[in-house]
Amino acid sequence: MSTVEQPQTTNGKYKVIGTRPIRHDGVDKVTGRAQYGADLRLQGTLRGAILRSPHAHARIRSIDTSAAAKLPGVHAVMTSADLPTIEHKVEDLGEGMFDMQDLSKNVLATDKVLYRGHAVAAVAADDVHIALEAIKLIQVDYEPLPPVLDVREACQDGAPILHEELRMSGFADANEPEDRPTNIAKKFLHEKGDLEAGFAEADIVVEREFTTSTVHQGYIEPHTATAMWNSDGNLTVWTSTQGSFTVRAQLAGLLEIPLAKIKVVPMEIGGGFGGKISVYLQPVAAVLSRMTGRPVQFTMDRTEVLEATGPTPGSWMKVKLGATRDGQLTAGEAEIYFEAGAFPGSPVGAGAMCVFACYDLPHGRVTGYDVCVNKPATKAYRAPGSTQVAFATESVVDEICRELNLDPLEFRIKNAAKESTRRIDGPVYSRIGMQESVEAAQESDHWKSSLDRGESSSEIRRGRGVASGFWFNAGLKSAVSASVNSDGSVSLVEGSTDIGGSRASIAMQLAETIGLQAEDIRPAVVDTDSIGYTDVTGGSRVTYATGWAAYEAGLDIRRQFTERAAIIWDCPTDEVQYDDGTWRGPDNQSLSFQEIAAQINSTGGPVIGHGTSDHDEPGGAFATHVVDVEVDIETGKVQIIRYTATQDVGTAIHPSYVEGQMQGGAVQGIGWALNEEYWYDATGVMRNNSLLDYRMPTCYDLPMIETIIVEVPNPGHPYGVRGVGEVPIAPPPAAIANAIQDAIGVRMRHLPMSPPHVLHEILKSSV
Amino acid sequence: MSTVEQPQTTNGKYKVIGTRPIRHDGVDKVTGRAQYGADLRLQGTLRGAILRSPHAHARIRSIDTSAAAKLPGVHAVMTSADLPTIEHKVEDLGEGMFDMQDLSKNVLATDKVLYRGHAVAAVAADDVHIALEAIKLIQVDYEPLPPVLDVREACQDGAPILHEELRMSGFADANEPEDRPTNIAKKFLHEKGDLEAGFAEADIVVEREFTTSTVHQGYIEPHTATAMWNSDGNLTVWTSTQGSFTVRAQLAGLLEIPLAKIKVVPMEIGGGFGGKISVYLQPVAAVLSRMTGRPVQFTMDRTEVLEATGPTPGSWMKVKLGATRDGQLTAGEAEIYFEAGAFPGSPVGAGAMCVFACYDLPHGRVTGYDVCVNKPATKAYRAPGSTQVAFATESVVDEICRELNLDPLEFRIKNAAKESTRRIDGPVYSRIGMQESVEAAQESDHWKSSLDRGESSSEIRRGRGVASGFWFNAGLKSAVSASVNSDGSVSLVEGSTDIGGSRASIAMQLAETIGLQAEDIRPAVVDTDSIGYTDVTGGSRVTYATGWAAYEAGLDIRRQFTERAAIIWDCPTDEVQYDDGTWRGPDNQSLSFQEIAAQINSTGGPVIGHGTSDHDEPGGAFATHVVDVEVDIETGKVQIIRYTATQDVGTAIHPSYVEGQMQGGAVQGIGWALNEEYWYDATGVMRNNSLLDYRMPTCYDLPMIETIIVEVPNPGHPYGVRGVGEVPIAPPPAAIANAIQDAIGVRMRHLPMSPPHVLHEILKSSV
Repeated sequence: MSTVEQPQTTNGKYKVIGTRPIRHDGVDKVTGRAQYGADLRLQGTLRGAILRSPHAHARIRSIDTSAAAKLPGVHAVMTSADLPTIEHKVEDLGEGMFDMQDLSKNVLATDKVLYRGHAVAAVAADDVHIALEAIKLIQVDYEPLPPVLDVREACQDGAPILHEELRMSGFADANEPEDRPTNIAKKFLHEKGDLEAGFAEADIVVEREFTTSTVHQGYIEPHTATAMWNSDGNLTVWTSTQGSFTVRAQLAGLLEIPLAKIKVVPMEIGGGFGGKISVYLQPVAAVLSRMTGRPVQFTMDRTEVLEATGPTPGSWMKVKLGATRDGQLTAGEAEIYFEAGAFPGSPVGAGAMCVFACYDLPHGRVTGYDVCVNKPATKAYRAPGSTQVAFATESVVDEICRELNLDPLEFRIKNAAKESTRRIDGPVYSRIGMQESVEAAQESDHWKSSLDRGESSSEIRRGRGVASGFWFNAGLKSAVSASVNSDGSVSLVEGSTDIGGSRASIAMQLAETIGLQAEDIRPAVVDTDSIGYTDVTGGSRVTYATGWAAYEAGLDIRRQFTERAAIIWDCPTDEVQYDDGTWRGPDNQSLSFQEIAAQINSTGGPVIGHGTSDHDEPGGAFATHVVDVEVDIETGKVQIIRYTATQDVGTAIHPSYVEGQMQGGAVQGIGWALNEEYWYDATGVMRNNSLLDYRMPTCYDLPMIETIIVEVPNPGHPYGVRGVGEVPIAPPPAAIANAIQDAIGVRMRHLPMSPPHVLHEILKSSV
Repeated sequence: MSTVEQPQTTNGKYKVIGTRPIRHDGVDKVTGRAQYGADLRLQGTLRGAILRSPHAHARIRSIDTSAAAKLPGVHAVMTSADLPTIEHKVEDLGEGMFDMQDLSKNVLATDKVLYRGHAVAAVAADDVHIALEAIKLIQVDYEPLPPVLDVREACQDGAPILHEELRMSGFADANEPEDRPTNIAKKFLHEKGDLEAGFAEADIVVEREFTTSTVHQGYIEPHTATAMWNSDGNLTVWTSTQGSFTVRAQLAGLLEIPLAKIKVVPMEIGGGFGGKISVYLQPVAAVLSRMTGRPVQFTMDRTEVLEATGPTPGSWMKVKLGATRDGQLTAGEAEIYFEAGAFPGSPVGAGAMCVFACYDLPHGRVTGYDVCVNKPATKAYRAPGSTQVAFATESVVDEICRELNLDPLEFRIKNAAKESTRRIDGPVYSRIGMQESVEAAQESDHWKSSLDRGESSSEIRRGRGVASGFWFNAGLKSAVSASVNSDGSVSLVEGSTDIGGSRASIAMQLAETIGLQAEDIRPAVVDTDSIGYTDVTGGSRVTYATGWAAYEAGLDIRRQFTERAAIIWDCPTDEVQYDDGTWRGPDNQSLSFQEIAAQINSTGGPVIGHGTSDHDEPGGAFATHVVDVEVDIETGKVQIIRYTATQDVGTAIHPSYVEGQMQGGAVQGIGWALNEEYWYDATGVMRNNSLLDYRMPTCYDLPMIETIIVEVPNPGHPYGVRGVGEVPIAPPPAAIANAIQDAIGVRMRHLPMSPPHVLHEILKSSV
C-alpha cells in the first residue's frame, strides 16, 4: 500500500473548515445503530413482493390476479390498473426531468413490458414468503416481442420499437422530425465557432468510435420503502432516498394527491450515487397500504436492484479532435448516443455538456441522442454521462499526444479550459481549476517517479496513463434551521439526506460562521414536514448549497446574538461587533457564544437561525488522474499498480471526506473501466444478475488510491466550496485505456476492458 | 343526557379561529396508528424492571444485587450508586422548580426510602419477565422507620422526620428558622392591606378548616421511556412527556452530561395533567443503556404509576372570610398546608396564589406550608393547588351567602376580581372575565330552571350548588417554524407535545395569520434536536404561547411573500399589501397565497417562517360551575344530575376542544370531589393501588357536562387567547359540597365526599 499524499488545505484561513472532526453519525453507522429503511418495524406491517416480467419485450394481453388474491395471508394484489392514468407531463424533480406517465409505467407496466424485470403486479401479505408465493399465482398472458438491446441497433430502420407513439423530439438536421415511430426519443445539438474552419487549421485530426456497457451504481443497500396511507388521506412513506422532497413530488404526481397529504421520512441511506432519486417501490407500497389500511413494506433483493432499477447507460460515441503540430486544439466534434433504456431520459444531455468541457476549444459541435432499448430505464450515476464521454475524449487526446510526441499533461495545460472559457454548450466559466489539477498531477510523486517497466515475467507489461474529467456541479435549493441551546451547542436541522458525510460538512460551515467547533453542532436530517424544501442529494450540490444555507443560518444567529448582547449590555445594537467568535461591546466588554447562549432565555427566549439557498454558481469540478497498470498479455487481465487522483475541490471543508470521495469515485471508475457490465443474452436476460457475477472491485483488487487536493476557491460560494463527489469517477476508464496503450500498444475503445475484451484486442493487433 | 349549550364564539371576527376543523392527529389517534412510547421497537432492546420499597419509611443498610446480576438473561443491574452524586441545586425546568439532588434521590433511593414504591434498584434483561424475576433476587437490608402520612401529624413535634438535614426555609413568623430537623420544607406569607381592620369592618366572619386527600392525575397511559446511550456519548430518549426539553434538562442535570449530548424524542402522550413533567424512568433507562450498549425500555404498570409517581397533595387548610351584611367581602385569611410527599416541592405556592384570586379583597393574608410526608413526591395536577383551595374558599363563601341569605352568584359578581384588582400575592389583573363567567352562569338554562326537588323516594334529597375557580395560566417560551410547500400548504414544526389538541389550535392561529384553512397546515411535533427551545406543555400555556409563536411565523411568511410578490410584479416591496389572504400590487394585480407559493422556487427558493415567543401576559382564567346533586341519605352516595360549566376562555380557537377541556376538567374535579383518594393503611401501604379500587368517574357515572364559553379576549395576546385547560378542575368539589349542603343541610369539609364520609357527616348531624 502506498503512502497517501498529504493534502494541501486552507490551513490558517479557517478554524473549522479544513479540519477533520469525527462525523456526527459515525458511531451510529459503524455500530449498526443507524436506522435504515429495512430496519423499520411498524406494528401490523404487511410485506410486499413484485411480479416482474420474464421477457425483455412483450405485450401484456391480460393479467389474472384472482388466484393470488385468494391465497391465505394475502391482503391485496395490485396492477397498474390501481394507479391513476397519468398524462405525459415532464416535471423537474431535482436531478433530472421526469415524465410522469413514463415514471408511472415504469413503476407498474401497463400495456407492454419493456425490459426483463419490469414490474407487472404487486402483492401485500402477512409475510414476505406468502407474498413471494402469491406472485407466482398471478397469471400474465404475454405476447413476446423481439427486443432491441444495443443503442446502434435501436437506431436502425426496422429495429423493434419500444414506444409506438414515440416521435423524435428536438432538432432534426435539416429536416423536420419524421412522423414515424422511433426509438430515438431526443436529438440535440450544441455548436460553437466554425467547425469546418477549425478542422482546416489542424495539422492532425483523430476521429474514433467508442462504446461502453450498461453499468450499475452498485450501492450496497437495496431499495426499500414502507408506506402507511392513513384513513384521513395522509400518506407517510419511510424510504431510502437521495431526496425526500423529490419522492414526495413524484408520489404527488403519480398518485394524483396534494403534496400536503404526503410526508416522506428519509431513513439512513446505504449508497445512492444517483440511483435513489426515482421512485420504484414507494407508489406501490402506498397504494397497497390504502387498499389494506395497514403499513406495507417492500425491500428489493439484489437481482431486482440490478434488473429493475436504473443503471447508467451503455453508449456509442464518435469523437473527432483536431490539433496543430505544437499541440493546440483547434476543433472538436462529438456524436453521443446514450441508451435511455425502457423510457426516454438518459443523461446524454449532461454527457454533451461534459464531453469537451476540460478544454478551451475554439470550434466545436456536439450532437446527442437519447435512444430507447429493452433494458431498465437508465438513471443518474455519479457525474451522469461524464465518464462515458471522458473515455472517448481523453482517449483521443492521448492518441494525439502520442502522434505528436507531446507530454500529455503539458498538452492538457496548454489547452485547459479556464476562467472565461465558453463551453460548447454555452456557459462561460468563472474561476476554475482544470489547469491546477493537471499541474498537481505533474507535481505528484507518482508522475515524478519513473515507471519501473522491469519485465519481471514475459507475460506482464506495464504502462502509465493520464486523463482528466469534468463535472459541472449543481446548486439548487436547500433549507436549514439551527436552534441555539443554552449550553452553547446548536441543533442543526437539514433536509439533505446524508450519503457521504454531509452532516459534518454542513455542520462545519455553520460552526465556522459562528465561531464554534464542529462537535458543538448537532445535525439532524428530518422529514419533509419538518424542514423547508430541499432538493436531492445529488449533483455534488449538498456541501455547496446546504452548506450555504447553514452559513446563512449562522449569519442569522450572529445577528440575533448581537441583539442579545446589546440587551445584556444595555447598549445600542450598533455598538456590538462580532469578532471571530466573540461579541465585543462598549467599555471593552466581550461575551463568548457560550456566554450569550446561557442568557438567551432571559433576553427574549429561543434563538433560531434560518437559512435557505438557491444559488447557481456551484463552479465546475476538474480532476486529473494518473494510473500505472500491469497487463497480462496471456489472459488480458489488467491490474492497477499505482493510482493518483488530483482534483480542484474549491475549499476542502472536511479533507478526509473529500479524499474519500476522490477515492470512492476513482474506484467506481476503475470498476467500470475493467469489469462492470450488464451481460445480456440475445433474449434480453441479464446473465450476471448478482454481485457474485456482476464484478465490482474490492479492496483486494486495488492499491490505496493516492489523493491530491487542489484548492481553487469557488468565487460563487462564501467559503469557496465546489462540489467534490462526482468528478472523480470520470477520468479512470480513459486513464486506464491510455495506460494499456502505453503498456502493450493496444488501443481499447470499449468498456469494460475486461480480460476477454483486452485479449481480443491483443489477438487482433498481433494478427 | 342534556343538550349541550351552543357556545358564544367570535363568529365573524375571524375566518379560522372559532371554527371546528377535525384535528390533524385525530385519525391516527382513533385508529391506534399514533405511536406511543411503549409502541417503540428498536432492535436489540432490553426491558427493564424496578425494585421498589415495600416500606413507607426505612433506612437502607445495604443492597446486594449479585444474585440478580447472575440470572441468565440479565444484562445489567443498577442502584443509585450508578448515578452521579448531585449537589442540592434548584433549577427552573418549566412548570415548577426542581431540586436536582431530590430529583435524583426520587429516581433511585440512596440512604433512605421515603415511601412505599420508592425505586431502589433496576434491572435490564432480555425480556420483562426475566427482569421481574431478577428484581426479586435483589437483597435489600432495610431498617424500617415509623412513617408519617398526614400533613397535620407531620407538622407536630416528635413526628418522624423524613430528611434529617431539612431546615425550614422562608420566613418564620417572628422567629428565625429553627435549627432543628423538620418536615416543613418551606413556609411563606402573602399580605395585603390591614387584616385586622378588614375583619373589624365585617358584620360576619366565617372561619373553617378543610382537608383533602391525595389524588392522582389518572392519565390512561403509564409512564414509559426508552433510552439508547451510544458509544459516541450521545444519548437518545424516547418517552411520554409533557416537555421534551424539560426531560433533556433534567437528564443533563441528573447524569451530569451536556445538553448537547442528549436528544429527547417525544412520543404521543396518553394524558399527563402535570404528572409527566418530572423524570422517573428516563435516567434509569439511560444508565442501563450505557452499561449494556443496548436500547433499554421501561414501562410502568398501573400500581407503579399510582404508588411511585407524583400525585397531587393532600391538604389541610384554614380559611377565614369577613363580609358586611350586604355582602361585601372585607378581609380574608388562609393557612394552607400541602403534603409535599417524600421531597419538598408541593404546589402550595400556586395554591396560595389562587386561594382568594376570584375576589377583590381589600385585606388579606395567606400563609403556605410545604410539608414532607411518607407518600410519593407530589407533582403538578391540572391547576395545581387551585382545586384544594377553591374547595375551602368557595365553601366558606357559600356559608356566608347562606348566613346572609344572599344569592351566591350575585355575591360573586359583587365581589368579583376585575381589571386592576391587585391579588393578595401581588399581581394586578389586566382585563379578566371573572364577572362574565358568573353572569354566564346566571344566564344559563341550568340556573334559570328551578331544581325539581320532587322527593321521588324518601331517601333521595336534591340540591344545587355553585362555585368559582381561578388559574393564573403561564406564558414561557415556545418556538415554531413553518415551511411553505409549492402547493400552498404549510408544514408547521413545533416543540410543544400535543396533549389536548394543540396541533390544531396552533395550526389554526398560523392559518388565520396567513389566510389559509386549518387543513392547509401540517403540524408536526418534533424532537429536541429539530426545533428551538420550547417549555413544557403545562400551565395552560401552549395555545397561548406556541400559538403566539405560530402567529409570528405567519407574519414572517407574510413578509417574505410580500417580497416574492414584488419580485413577480417587478415592483418595490412597499407597493405590495397583504389584505386578508391576498397580496395586492400595482395596477390592481393580486395574488393568492397558493399563487405565490407556486412561484417560490423561481423567486428565490424556500420560504420558511419562524416564530418564537416569550411573553408573560397570559391572562387569568376564571370559571363558574353550577351543579345539581342527588344525595342518598341511607348510603351517602352523591349523584350528579346536572352540571354546567362556564368559563372565560379569552378567544376560543377551537370551541370543541375548549368545551372538551371544560368537560374533562369538570369531570376530574367531580372524581376528586366524590371518590378519588389514596387509601393508605397505618404502615403507609396504599390499599387501592389499581384503577379497580382507585375509583375514577366514567361516562356511566355522569350526565353530559354542559358548557358555556365566555370570550373576554386577553389583551396580552394577538388573538386574545387565554389558557383554558386547567381552571375547570377547580370549582367542582366546592360546587358539589355546596349542593350537598343545599340538599341535606350537611357541610362537607373533607374530600372525597364519598359515601362513607357523607354518611358519617349525616349521622353526626342527625345526632
